[in-house]
Amino acid sequence: MREIREFPMEGIDLYSELHEECGVFGIYENSRTDVATSAYFALYALQHRGQESCGIAVNDDGVINCHKNVGLVPDVFNRDVLESLGQGNMAVGHCRYSTTGNGSVVNAQPLVVRHCKGTMALAHNGNLVNAPDLRRQLEMNGAIFHTTNDSEVISYIITRERLLSPSIEEAVAKAMYTLKGAYSLIVMSPKKLIAARDPNGFRPLCVGKTEDGYAFASESCAFDSIGAQFLRDVEPGEIVVAEDGELRSIRTHCGGRSSFCVFEYVYFARPDSVVEGVSVHEARQRAGRILYREHPIEADVVIGVPDSGLDAALGYSRESGIPYGVGFIKNRYVGRTFIQPTQGQRENAVRIKLNVIAETVKDKRVVLIDDSIVRGTTCGRIVKLLREAGAKEVHFAVSAPPFRNPCFFGTDIDSRDKLIACRMTIPEIAKTIGVDSLHYLSVEGVQQIARGAHCGFCVGCFTGEYPIKVPDETPKDKFEHKISEKAKRREQA
Amino acid sequence: MREIREFPMEGIDLYSELHEECGVFGIYENSRTDVATSAYFALYALQHRGQESCGIAVNDDGVINCHKNVGLVPDVFNRDVLESLGQGNMAVGHCRYSTTGNGSVVNAQPLVVRHCKGTMALAHNGNLVNAPDLRRQLEMNGAIFHTTNDSEVISYIITRERLLSPSIEEAVAKAMYTLKGAYSLIVMSPKKLIAARDPNGFRPLCVGKTEDGYAFASESCAFDSIGAQFLRDVEPGEIVVAEDGELRSIRTHCGGRSSFCVFEYVYFARPDSVVEGVSVHEARQRAGRILYREHPIEADVVIGVPDSGLDAALGYSRESGIPYGVGFIKNRYVGRTFIQPTQGQRENAVRIKLNVIAETVKDKRVVLIDDSIVRGTTCGRIVKLLREAGAKEVHFAVSAPPFRNPCFFGTDIDSRDKLIACRMTIPEIAKTIGVDSLHYLSVEGVQQIARGAHCGFCVGCFTGEYPIKVPDETPKDKFEHKISEKAKRREQA
Amino acid sequence: MREIREFPMEGIDLYSELHEECGVFGIYENSRTDVATSAYFALYALQHRGQESCGIAVNDDGVINCHKNVGLVPDVFNRDVLESLGQGNMAVGHCRYSTTGNGSVVNAQPLVVRHCKGTMALAHNGNLVNAPDLRRQLEMNGAIFHTTNDSEVISYIITRERLLSPSIEEAVAKAMYTLKGAYSLIVMSPKKLIAARDPNGFRPLCVGKTEDGYAFASESCAFDSIGAQFLRDVEPGEIVVAEDGELRSIRTHCGGRSSFCVFEYVYFARPDSVVEGVSVHEARQRAGRILYREHPIEADVVIGVPDSGLDAALGYSRESGIPYGVGFIKNRYVGRTFIQPTQGQRENAVRIKLNVIAETVKDKRVVLIDDSIVRGTTCGRIVKLLREAGAKEVHFAVSAPPFRNPCFFGTDIDSRDKLIACRMTIPEIAKTIGVDSLHYLSVEGVQQIARGAHCGFCVGCFTGEYPIKVPDETPKDKFEHKISEKAKRREQA
Amino acid sequence: MREIREFPMEGIDLYSELHEECGVFGIYENSRTDVATSAYFALYALQHRGQESCGIAVNDDGVINCHKNVGLVPDVFNRDVLESLGQGNMAVGHCRYSTTGNGSVVNAQPLVVRHCKGTMALAHNGNLVNAPDLRRQLEMNGAIFHTTNDSEVISYIITRERLLSPSIEEAVAKAMYTLKGAYSLIVMSPKKLIAARDPNGFRPLCVGKTEDGYAFASESCAFDSIGAQFLRDVEPGEIVVAEDGELRSIRTHCGGRSSFCVFEYVYFARPDSVVEGVSVHEARQRAGRILYREHPIEADVVIGVPDSGLDAALGYSRESGIPYGVGFIKNRYVGRTFIQPTQGQRENAVRIKLNVIAETVKDKRVVLIDDSIVRGTTCGRIVKLLREAGAKEVHFAVSAPPFRNPCFFGTDIDSRDKLIACRMTIPEIAKTIGVDSLHYLSVEGVQQIARGAHCGFCVGCFTGEYPIKVPDETPKDKFEHKISEKAKRREQA
Repeated sequence: MREIREFPMEGIDLYSELHEECGVFGIYENSRTDVATSAYFALYALQHRGQESCGIAVNDDGVINCHKNVGLVPDVFNRDVLESLGQGNMAVGHCRYSTTGNGSVVNAQPLVVRHCKGTMALAHNGNLVNAPDLRRQLEMNGAIFHTTNDSEVISYIITRERLLSPSIEEAVAKAMYTLKGAYSLIVMSPKKLIAARDPNGFRPLCVGKTEDGYAFASESCAFDSIGAQFLRDVEPGEIVVAEDGELRSIRTHCGGRSSFCVFEYVYFARPDSVVEGVSVHEARQRAGRILYREHPIEADVVIGVPDSGLDAALGYSRESGIPYGVGFIKNRYVGRTFIQPTQGQRENAVRIKLNVIAETVKDKRVVLIDDSIVRGTTCGRIVKLLREAGAKEVHFAVSAPPFRNPCFFGTDIDSRDKLIACRMTIPEIAKTIGVDSLHYLSVEGVQQIARGAHCGFCVGCFTGEYPIKVPDETPKDKFEHKISEKAKRREQA
Repeated sequence: MREIREFPMEGIDLYSELHEECGVFGIYENSRTDVATSAYFALYALQHRGQESCGIAVNDDGVINCHKNVGLVPDVFNRDVLESLGQGNMAVGHCRYSTTGNGSVVNAQPLVVRHCKGTMALAHNGNLVNAPDLRRQLEMNGAIFHTTNDSEVISYIITRERLLSPSIEEAVAKAMYTLKGAYSLIVMSPKKLIAARDPNGFRPLCVGKTEDGYAFASESCAFDSIGAQFLRDVEPGEIVVAEDGELRSIRTHCGGRSSFCVFEYVYFARPDSVVEGVSVHEARQRAGRILYREHPIEADVVIGVPDSGLDAALGYSRESGIPYGVGFIKNRYVGRTFIQPTQGQRENAVRIKLNVIAETVKDKRVVLIDDSIVRGTTCGRIVKLLREAGAKEVHFAVSAPPFRNPCFFGTDIDSRDKLIACRMTIPEIAKTIGVDSLHYLSVEGVQQIARGAHCGFCVGCFTGEYPIKVPDETPKDKFEHKISEKAKRREQA
Repeated sequence: MREIREFPMEGIDLYSELHEECGVFGIYENSRTDVATSAYFALYALQHRGQESCGIAVNDDGVINCHKNVGLVPDVFNRDVLESLGQGNMAVGHCRYSTTGNGSVVNAQPLVVRHCKGTMALAHNGNLVNAPDLRRQLEMNGAIFHTTNDSEVISYIITRERLLSPSIEEAVAKAMYTLKGAYSLIVMSPKKLIAARDPNGFRPLCVGKTEDGYAFASESCAFDSIGAQFLRDVEPGEIVVAEDGELRSIRTHCGGRSSFCVFEYVYFARPDSVVEGVSVHEARQRAGRILYREHPIEADVVIGVPDSGLDAALGYSRESGIPYGVGFIKNRYVGRTFIQPTQGQRENAVRIKLNVIAETVKDKRVVLIDDSIVRGTTCGRIVKLLREAGAKEVHFAVSAPPFRNPCFFGTDIDSRDKLIACRMTIPEIAKTIGVDSLHYLSVEGVQQIARGAHCGFCVGCFTGEYPIKVPDETPKDKFEHKISEKAKRREQA
Repeated sequence: MREIREFPMEGIDLYSELHEECGVFGIYENSRTDVATSAYFALYALQHRGQESCGIAVNDDGVINCHKNVGLVPDVFNRDVLESLGQGNMAVGHCRYSTTGNGSVVNAQPLVVRHCKGTMALAHNGNLVNAPDLRRQLEMNGAIFHTTNDSEVISYIITRERLLSPSIEEAVAKAMYTLKGAYSLIVMSPKKLIAARDPNGFRPLCVGKTEDGYAFASESCAFDSIGAQFLRDVEPGEIVVAEDGELRSIRTHCGGRSSFCVFEYVYFARPDSVVEGVSVHEARQRAGRILYREHPIEADVVIGVPDSGLDAALGYSRESGIPYGVGFIKNRYVGRTFIQPTQGQRENAVRIKLNVIAETVKDKRVVLIDDSIVRGTTCGRIVKLLREAGAKEVHFAVSAPPFRNPCFFGTDIDSRDKLIACRMTIPEIAKTIGVDSLHYLSVEGVQQIARGAHCGFCVGCFTGEYPIKVPDETPKDKFEHKISEKAKRREQA
């Protein structure tokens, strides 16, 4: 599904198609230390979850300093900025993808707000299904909004509850009755660091132990980057509070129907993360194994599309005994500032980003593995590269089911009319992208890739059946009525 | 009072001592056009009122796009940014000075917020005396604050009133009963552009006519930069609404005691602006003339400290008949990125910014004119330069009274313990800075510099008597308790 | 002649019309110290002589580190760069104007070259009239050229002489027999710092004393910026060598016909510099006085075009008794990154850069002073501004004669077909720019502005009579055949 | 040997240890077109050969425009720069590694020089063994040098020969008698594009066919990026001339002893390139196969160090039947601006760049493959990561022999005293880096990895035996006397 990344044809940014909305991180130390740099390293590890903007808020004895901006972690932070954030005993970090644009710095997180009981910083990954309703209600009571973030809605709801609650964690617990949808949340008050996860546990969130404190993060790879030890996942519906050097758990909302996003395993999470007890790398390899079991193809070599198809390709190879090969080289220097080629140069330009190793595929029957097909254009070009390099047959196997329904829980997918699987049958797609055969993992199959995970799964984007009530509009409507951000703002104005 | 600008000794930014808090601009055109570029040109003309951050919000049929950041107008805006703002029929611009720091982008204006009735952009120049109270009341009702701006308080107050008012302008009118202090305000709703000025008229605000619409600005020089015609000042307490191609005036709050900040004439405003019916350049020249009448000095040449002392020096020369001379050359290339000299280099480094023309002062009795003395250090160095260049006598005449009290109405002055006039008598200051004599304009005198102005004046910073009730703390307290921004936030947290 | 600076109409850079080619600086200290920062401060003071590129070369015991790039001093140098240059006992600095373009960094100076006897750094201000011939001869002997600078030619000539000379200063002395034209030169060898000035002394060059060493600079203002004392000018034809803590003079080439560029006084040099024994500020004032004597106009106010017309305006006022006024405010924030207005916005945009103070000129007969008229377009606009502001009469007086001939000695003037004085009579110009009368200083007059200077003058650009033989092509030819840099390079290729 | 890339301990840039000196590219089209963009795409593909600086020179009918600077291709070039280079029918591109430092822009290539017969651009990959001698001789004849590049020496030699030769290609052919060492050269004259390779063919250089012309490049992957077809390698000693739409070959110097750098296969070249008829990817896999045959280890999984150890690991796996695993995830966002962790954070920080996938190695006997060990520090940390992740045994196999001798032919290796293989025996190294066993490919083995290549090999860095006479100093001397760039310049000064 990162297909468009390699696809320069429409003048689209390389990293613009399918996005996890965010990575979150929080650290609580028992003494004043350089928490900003820890957050910086952690955000590097979580960068894959959001490349549009990022930010860090440091809490120095109740005084919160925040720096955030549009850009990657190395663009937004340098030595001077980190120093200006100063030391503290807590910090919250966030990286984010969303709509682009110059103004989008206002949407960068963490959100730092001052309310009746002091200052609060908030980092959020997910998507509320009732955000528009909540927003409307708040506005009818005089609220003003600076952003189009759900995080600002959450801040208001927590603030309102805080007026009537003895503590911030109770305010969070009460707010969770109101918030519907997906949210993995980190809240920093003057004295406490709080992690909370929605009752379905759509998005990952876990707890780690630092040498002298605790940390929360979207993925365990963030702990590795700061030398923290992974402790456990935050449970669906759980609130974990770091205060006075200790962790406490509030389980008011626990016990819901666990519905972890299976696509986190397939694509979003980093292979070196362990989520819900299962290694992401292992899950992807298993996807490849199951894919072979469901679709055994006779071939001479199995190759993956870098980077996300490689693990599944290795699994397919191991299960089938067909040799694993390195089919492509990805140019590591092609980034955001790459100048898009003109029409005449485009056919060649795909090779700047992804070039074939001809020796691997020449005169061979090739099984090509990737985790998704979005629009099909990039796939088509990749297949063409293989053909030109002398591949005798090209069989495309996808390590997930076809993507045919909208996601309401924190990913930003393409409009249905652009999704090739909404417009064509599988044989039609195969013909369009020029492969000899095309195979998808089954819905049953994808649910088995994380064998041993202590969670259930949301597979709504494949089946259209969602674990909780989604907005009234049918998914189809959502796609059809999908409106530009600009139009949206016009409506609201 | 721009003294520190030329003073590199304390490693302070050249432009960091005394600051008008903001310049505001708004434009309303009858058709969709390039209002962003108009705002850009206008902000260039208003840049002297605030160099920390700036921003422009464009209204395209109710959709508001905003770009703002820390930096000067040419740092924040380039061709691409202006194009990304797009066309529209209204725009609001703002330039600002306040506390520095990386995080301060959140305090940049215009503030764009969404409330119950749509989107609103707001640009503000001034300072509310009851902002902390209002903030507290709002917080007790569940409000959250993203900034430390008064503008956000104003937005809330207007929003609350909007819930119960039939129009945005009535909401503004009602809000003005609540807002106490100095505010020159521009509010942009989806359909209207509104200018409002506090009943005392502390800060300037005026109305202009473009070819096909209207404009509001802090100073008339902004109109010149876009080819608009100056129409008139907004009256103290007046609300002016641009809507449906016409201007309407609401005078609910008019008739208060006009108390225009006299220091706008002395220092803040641009010489080519006409404020309250009087040319700023003329007022400064008159300050020089009155200064001579109050303090006739026998001398051979009158020189001014560039740039702000030049006009008064010319006035002094004309009134006295003593020749006007060019005593200093200011280096136009020294800006923000100038590397501060080390201790050993400092004595010379002042000459990088301000060098004497020895021929003008050699063997002469010199009258040196400037608009203020803040800490005295820069003055001392300038006087030393004159002595080294051979000046026989140096008499320092200041075109305003000594600055001994805090300002509560929108300027950011130094702490009392650093103000030389709070610590020393005039003869002591004279001795400290090394002049043969030192003279200040009288309070009566400064009130006559804008002869013919259709306004009264606030001279609180000279006398300690303010036109409206100021916060409980005595001015002295305010100075003594002046706390760092960081400490302030700690208190609030 | 800085006319076009204020002239945004043709999309031309503000600072692109008439240029002194360079400023040079050298420092020799008896011990290892932070000479890079001294050069940095000095270049700030010399920035007016060249804004295209700049550079500093530091000599640390024979090891020369150099940093140079396109841009102003604050663009090219920051703390890190200065530190990377390290300490040393000698440094050479240079700022330069020439043709623009991305590639022009190769033409930045100082030029650092390694030759048979070690490393040499060279900074040059001026223009050789026989550079093409010398270049050709060198090429015929196998030389290769990296730049289109005369400085590279000079380096070769010195290098060739060095092969047969016992010392670098003798090599310089011998080279001076070959070099024809204008050159103020600083040469740094591993052990010596050498200043040399052509026998006519076209461009300025002077010697100063630092606390523990010596300095050379184009203008004395550079000494002020580093706390050095002005000692004297380098004489035409003189070579001054700093070595072993002492200065030595070689006068082999002295005694030529002194022909200092009079336009240095009129426009190029900084008013606070003293050149050839005369204050530049005084010379400009005197130009204004003589201008009045030659052209007494009846008027109510005398104003200058900022910044270069102000001194002459003051002189005119003093001589005539007509009051001196401040007619314009120049926007100090408009720099290189200013976005040029579109056709529709242009009429107003001139006011962004230069706005009239209406009160100064309204209903008055105005004498407007500037140092030159190049194309006439900007003048015309300025006059229009005055008319719109209510000036009753506008009389334009130019503090130099009309500029009708090419300069071969280091300035970059416009092509003859664009020079208004080559195309029109004075009355025609007056009509074109819309003034009631137009007056130029006479050639005799301009030669008296630096009364007391110990030099003769070159007035070739006014008269067409040059102190030395200029290239065969008549001046007219030079203009007519003026070819673009690109075409030039084509010819040479 | 890219070991230090993952090694943050010494505050060293990630990409600073072992470097190929350059990548070169040239294009000759029959008509005027956008050759700058073609060069831009090609340099992207060659970026791995040099990350310090890069440049492009475009030839438009004899006029050569060049842009070059310090930085990666996307840092140095953007749309505006490419447009400013304009169109043409030829271009030369270059990317380079060398010593770092602000001043190094003077050493960026292509070198564009003007000589007796016009302009010439030159791009060079390699290292002359007689450069100091040639430089001295030239200096004794009056030459001056701007750079410390061999390229400038080559330019001079060609220029001298050009004076006596009827054509540029004959001048190149004659120059080759003088030039000793490694050089793959592209020379652009006003009318011709010439590729030349030294008689030993140390560095790669190949010829391709564009739609309407020809191209030369260091590696064939550059052709893929612009849609050109690989034609053949330039032969050792061959000169290929593109002129009048055709290619001509001059074989005066062919027939020498082919001595292609075998480390190009092991590490430098891109896996998708085909060099001397052999796929680099294949060669690396074969290195892994031979490594197993020489050192069969009993293990459960084979993993490679990303990116350069992966291919050999796959080969080792295939030959041995031991499963291939993905042991590490490399963070793709860690680049030049990464802030180095402090001492306390270092142990963890290696994980930011390279994190273990614990599932792959837990409780397993691991064979870890990389292409070299330089200092050993990074290796040690990587091994530690594996141990912490639960690896039962770690066996390190290196796909090349130990690196014990200096390279004189265009790579920049560490000083001998830092090379671990110069200081320790293999068992000692094994102990130091903490592995259960350590194995290197034999010299015989490395010579067989490119089976079928139509070239001989240079293995001097492993054996100390070089195909041509190297400088008098023994290799040991070279290492011992290795002096800093600064010291070097001091010597020369």
